[in-house]
Amino acid sequence: MSGNSFGTIFRITTFGESHGKAIGVIIDGCPAGLNISLAEIQKELDRRRPGQSSITSPRNEADQFEILSGIYQNKTLGTPISLLVQNKDQKPEDYTSLATIYRPSHADYTWEKKFGIRDPRGGGRASARETVARVAAGAIAKQLLAQYKISIQAYVSAVGKVINPIPYSDLDLNNTENSIIRNPDAESATKMIEAINLAREQGDSLGGVITCIIKNCPPGLGEPVFDKLHADLGKAMLSINAVKGFEIGEGFQAGSMLGSEHNDPFEMKNNKVGTTTNHSGGIQGGISNGEDIYFRIAFKPVATIAQKQNSIDNAGNAVSLEAKGRHDPCVVPRAVPIVEAMAALVLADHMLRAATNKI
Amino acid sequence: MSGNSFGTIFRITTFGESHGKAIGVIIDGCPAGLNISLAEIQKELDRRRPGQSSITSPRNEADQFEILSGIYQNKTLGTPISLLVQNKDQKPEDYTSLATIYRPSHADYTWEKKFGIRDPRGGGRASARETVARVAAGAIAKQLLAQYKISIQAYVSAVGKVINPIPYSDLDLNNTENSIIRNPDAESATKMIEAINLAREQGDSLGGVITCIIKNCPPGLGEPVFDKLHADLGKAMLSINAVKGFEIGEGFQAGSMLGSEHNDPFEMKNNKVGTTTNHSGGIQGGISNGEDIYFRIAFKPVATIAQKQNSIDNAGNAVSLEAKGRHDPCVVPRAVPIVEAMAALVLADHMLRAATNKI
Amino acid sequence: MSGNSFGTIFRITTFGESHGKAIGVIIDGCPAGLNISLAEIQKELDRRRPGQSSITSPRNEADQFEILSGIYQNKTLGTPISLLVQNKDQKPEDYTSLATIYRPSHADYTWEKKFGIRDPRGGGRASARETVARVAAGAIAKQLLAQYKISIQAYVSAVGKVINPIPYSDLDLNNTENSIIRNPDAESATKMIEAINLAREQGDSLGGVITCIIKNCPPGLGEPVFDKLHADLGKAMLSINAVKGFEIGEGFQAGSMLGSEHNDPFEMKNNKVGTTTNHSGGIQGGISNGEDIYFRIAFKPVATIAQKQNSIDNAGNAVSLEAKGRHDPCVVPRAVPIVEAMAALVLADHMLRAATNKI
Amino acid sequence: MSGNSFGTIFRITTFGESHGKAIGVIIDGCPAGLNISLAEIQKELDRRRPGQSSITSPRNEADQFEILSGIYQNKTLGTPISLLVQNKDQKPEDYTSLATIYRPSHADYTWEKKFGIRDPRGGGRASARETVARVAAGAIAKQLLAQYKISIQAYVSAVGKVINPIPYSDLDLNNTENSIIRNPDAESATKMIEAINLAREQGDSLGGVITCIIKNCPPGLGEPVFDKLHADLGKAMLSINAVKGFEIGEGFQAGSMLGSEHNDPFEMKNNKVGTTTNHSGGIQGGISNGEDIYFRIAFKPVATIAQKQNSIDNAGNAVSLEAKGRHDPCVVPRAVPIVEAMAALVLADHMLRAATNKI
Repeated sequence: MSGNSFGTIFRITTFGESHGKAIGVIIDGCPAGLNISLAEIQKELDRRRPGQSSITSPRNEADQFEILSGIYQNKTLGTPISLLVQNKDQKPEDYTSLATIYRPSHADYTWEKKFGIRDPRGGGRASARETVARVAAGAIAKQLLAQYKISIQAYVSAVGKVINPIPYSDLDLNNTENSIIRNPDAESATKMIEAINLAREQGDSLGGVITCIIKNCPPGLGEPVFDKLHADLGKAMLSINAVKGFEIGEGFQAGSMLGSEHNDPFEMKNNKVGTTTNHSGGIQGGISNGEDIYFRIAFKPVATIAQKQNSIDNAGNAVSLEAKGRHDPCVVPRAVPIVEAMAALVLADHMLRAATNKI
Repeated sequence: MSGNSFGTIFRITTFGESHGKAIGVIIDGCPAGLNISLAEIQKELDRRRPGQSSITSPRNEADQFEILSGIYQNKTLGTPISLLVQNKDQKPEDYTSLATIYRPSHADYTWEKKFGIRDPRGGGRASARETVARVAAGAIAKQLLAQYKISIQAYVSAVGKVINPIPYSDLDLNNTENSIIRNPDAESATKMIEAINLAREQGDSLGGVITCIIKNCPPGLGEPVFDKLHADLGKAMLSINAVKGFEIGEGFQAGSMLGSEHNDPFEMKNNKVGTTTNHSGGIQGGISNGEDIYFRIAFKPVATIAQKQNSIDNAGNAVSLEAKGRHDPCVVPRAVPIVEAMAALVLADHMLRAATNKI
Repeated sequence: MSGNSFGTIFRITTFGESHGKAIGVIIDGCPAGLNISLAEIQKELDRRRPGQSSITSPRNEADQFEILSGIYQNKTLGTPISLLVQNKDQKPEDYTSLATIYRPSHADYTWEKKFGIRDPRGGGRASARETVARVAAGAIAKQLLAQYKISIQAYVSAVGKVINPIPYSDLDLNNTENSIIRNPDAESATKMIEAINLAREQGDSLGGVITCIIKNCPPGLGEPVFDKLHADLGKAMLSINAVKGFEIGEGFQAGSMLGSEHNDPFEMKNNKVGTTTNHSGGIQGGISNGEDIYFRIAFKPVATIAQKQNSIDNAGNAVSLEAKGRHDPCVVPRAVPIVEAMAALVLADHMLRAATNKI
Repeated sequence: MSGNSFGTIFRITTFGESHGKAIGVIIDGCPAGLNISLAEIQKELDRRRPGQSSITSPRNEADQFEILSGIYQNKTLGTPISLLVQNKDQKPEDYTSLATIYRPSHADYTWEKKFGIRDPRGGGRASARETVARVAAGAIAKQLLAQYKISIQAYVSAVGKVINPIPYSDLDLNNTENSIIRNPDAESATKMIEAINLAREQGDSLGGVITCIIKNCPPGLGEPVFDKLHADLGKAMLSINAVKGFEIGEGFQAGSMLGSEHNDPFEMKNNKVGTTTNHSGGIQGGISNGEDIYFRIAFKPVATIAQKQNSIDNAGNAVSLEAKGRHDPCVVPRAVPIVEAMAALVLADHMLRAATNKI
């Protein structure tokens, strides 16, 4: 009810404030007997952590995790897996001056209206630091999906006005991690890094777009009415901090196409049912059809900027503010593992939900 | 789990196949003591029903509803409200020839993979006829929201390549219902109707875009982590048949903006906290801030077209098919009340969820 | 949230008021491809219906059901099954005089405090007529369980002070339906009927106890912490009108036993793991162990009696009332199919939940 | 789905194995702005902890807790409260010999059938050590209920064959904590302690009964159909380790009463609606009526006994076992705070659920 849980059978609950003692997650419903690689979890946390490259926030969090329950001798027990990351690099004094100010396009005002109280230290639970928990849980979901050969790969396809113009199917997605911007196309990657450096110099910030591709998803996942596979993916993505848009397959472009252009005829491919084209993005009627699932997610620019801004305080007085603290000029590269994690959580859940579809 | 329910406190469950006996909905969690206008429910169903204008399907369903429970002397009892619409104009013989064929970009193949069985009559439960139930339930949610002066208005902002270029704030949304296309801008409305008529003549179909605006939403609605208000709105919209994209506020455009352009400074407006601009679309950190909430939804073109198409049957044989039956060349105008209904369901639920946020 | 739904994967939602148009149920999550016998459903409804014998209420309801969705060519589609029973023998005029009176040990007062409004016609939704919906849904759950050879049989083991003293394992449960009291022991059955007839003559009512036995439940059903199999069975039973107690295995008797008396040692039986005794009632740590599951449910006497009673009206005035209308002096025999139905719903749900316990 | 969560709006999720790193709980949905006394939480944990008196297990756990999130400056933030208790006195070597043996009336066999794997260290998550988490969460629920003057008090009313014969209303419940057995009647308390000491000497164990009373519950709590207040209380109690029975009001005794004896007439008491008698136990139609809510819970004797027992191992071989380790001969006194905690969780949840019952 309070929206701190996600999923139905494979279900996570996250907790923790940005500058509280820890961020954590409970993963309930993971089947027993799954081998867990702890290194794979740390690898995903490292992809998300601040301070990993020259274009990210210098907040220095090693983000080492600890598992308190649910895994015994490297195997899941079928009981809740609890996973904790201590908050180490807390400097709450950076934030006390902001306790009464409503920062533009932050959640300060809306939380105060909702709860009558807020934790001013680094945005409290409104901070994207909460996504540490999602990435950790997603790393376990990925290991479950790997049993079924399902892979999830995301990359940065736009930063500000710089666009990677190449279709995903012509990219080598294994190159994504080779660039600090997480764009497998070297040419646009270089321009994106330049754009971020320029924004930082100007005390400004940038948004962007991430593209995500799911391969080897078996046909039959997704519930056909409200919990369509792409509706759950869309909600998962829109629940990530700073996301303002989601589209699957042709997305908004589909609105301007003719039915005769957009339809994907079925055909036999290697003795399996497939489609000749894939405008649908691998999902029809809310259910996966076995083709690649691909979707795009739009991120707004980071709200915290170093330029002077006008706003008000909680007494209604006009104030002028200028961000201090340690912030990314563009979060999109660090959001790549978050996108993958949320996609993995959706897929793992629907994989388990599908287990009882038929006699 | 099976995804036929939507909402948490204000929760609906829909049922029914396109050519079964009836489509219906159970609305659970509507507070007791709410006065219900049956005429308002019928009005919304009439906006959705086929055969309402020259540009919609000639399937002739009066879509008259019956309430079986939950309302006594025109007031809600606090018990489940059950509402039924009989399917009258059933012509299942139109569909028997399709029982073994996988129509392109329809859900025939994916349902069969999921359930091992499907109802071939008009798509069964995959048909958009299921949205009758949503519109009826949404009409009750709207009456609950009206108690708080919250209004929801959607309109068609694009059909195929024809776009209504005027920002919503410069339109008179009360004109929406005056045109059969549900676009309050007369100039682009005319072109949209022409485009639809052309598509029909060519045996083709068109997609489009709907814009939806929620006014007078109080600040404080939405749960801050997974159930962000726009994440729930996004899921609601993506669960509507044929929807391929959702964006809120600046949406995908936000990805190419600078933080200094996109941020919405707070200011006092008539002694209330407001924002100078509204790039955020009325939601910050997943919680409403009191400004207008606006979002856009992309619809793919209708999959059923009168042109000859290639596909396969369930034995893997190549087939050629040509749609008969009664279909809309463009469903977007009829989707306007569906979009409003789903938005109303999300808002009603979050309104009730907010009741226990603080002591 | 409003408590009109039961179950998680196999999930039902009931609706309808006692003297409204209909009572119904939506069954969501039943796997696709299950053959459904409509006759089996009617048989269960007939076991529950009023007017079936000399010791039950003369309210005359045929309780014929109609299925609106979810079943096609006698097979489940995997979509919501909706099932409706019209209320035919409505005599709301019997009840109008009660609209302002709080009947002793009825829900009139508590509903009014909760909802601020109530349907006075026959108790509205507080009436045990709601259990028609449970029995219908349970009849489908039983057909699912029959696939796994799981059987559920309940019988009346006490009425007022008359007790059937024979352990269930020494009874032939196939005799249960041979007596109108649903007690397979002829001797105590006769005394129970006499007790009921005497209570009716005196304008009084009686409670009783039902014993229920589940055979062939496979080991491994039940979730070990909050959703223990017997905790869910207990809730299911306590949710039936007039139930005041539930005990499993030795139940309250276990409280006075020694560990050395109560423990059930494991042993091999026909090459399968079993227990030498079964004081536990077939469940250990909340999970079935393969032995018979047996439990007892206590019913209070019917609140509606023909004797004059004192109470107050909703203005606080003292009133004297004497029941008219058509009521059972003892509902326990008619509750037997309700108990079985609720048990079947719990088992069907846990059977599906167990599908994802391990890799 | 996996049953590690309890509640709907006020919802807890527990995690942790008996001899893992920690036991913990996430409390989600607690309203913001509630003052929290940490001392009250510790007090409840101390009532539950082993080693507190001569009649409890010598396992020595201080059970000091740590709060990781959700509370800031002693006030709830409206975000998830996470609370952890480290497991300090772990001696897993006590248990390795049991890894392949199915102990009688323990959950070893059933867990293995369910999950295919189990944590043999002290029963893993099947251990009643999990209830540390419930007591901690219940201590927060109690603080929420205290805002509404609702109090919950339980006591031991039977141990083995020793019964406290005095009705709760004639006892001074404030004396409960004065005896190590938690029975406010000194005479039967002494006999209970003697019975426990005798059982220990004989290497045996005892069960018992706890009675719980809720005072000042406002009328109107409880959902009328499946989530009746006593059905949720019953499930809560039956989910506690070793519980085999639950009864409310007259309970099983009600089955042998006449309607004219059992009915509770309404009357005005101090200008408020009340009932002359309270056979119903404060709940009618599943909804509280403002009178005392009282119920009884039966506990089986502890399964671990020091006597030699026969059983089998997981290869089906007969084995003889004799418990070592540190165990209580009777857990009932330590279960008193667990019963109160579970009751508090049910009440807190229904208090919040009632917030949206009417317009």
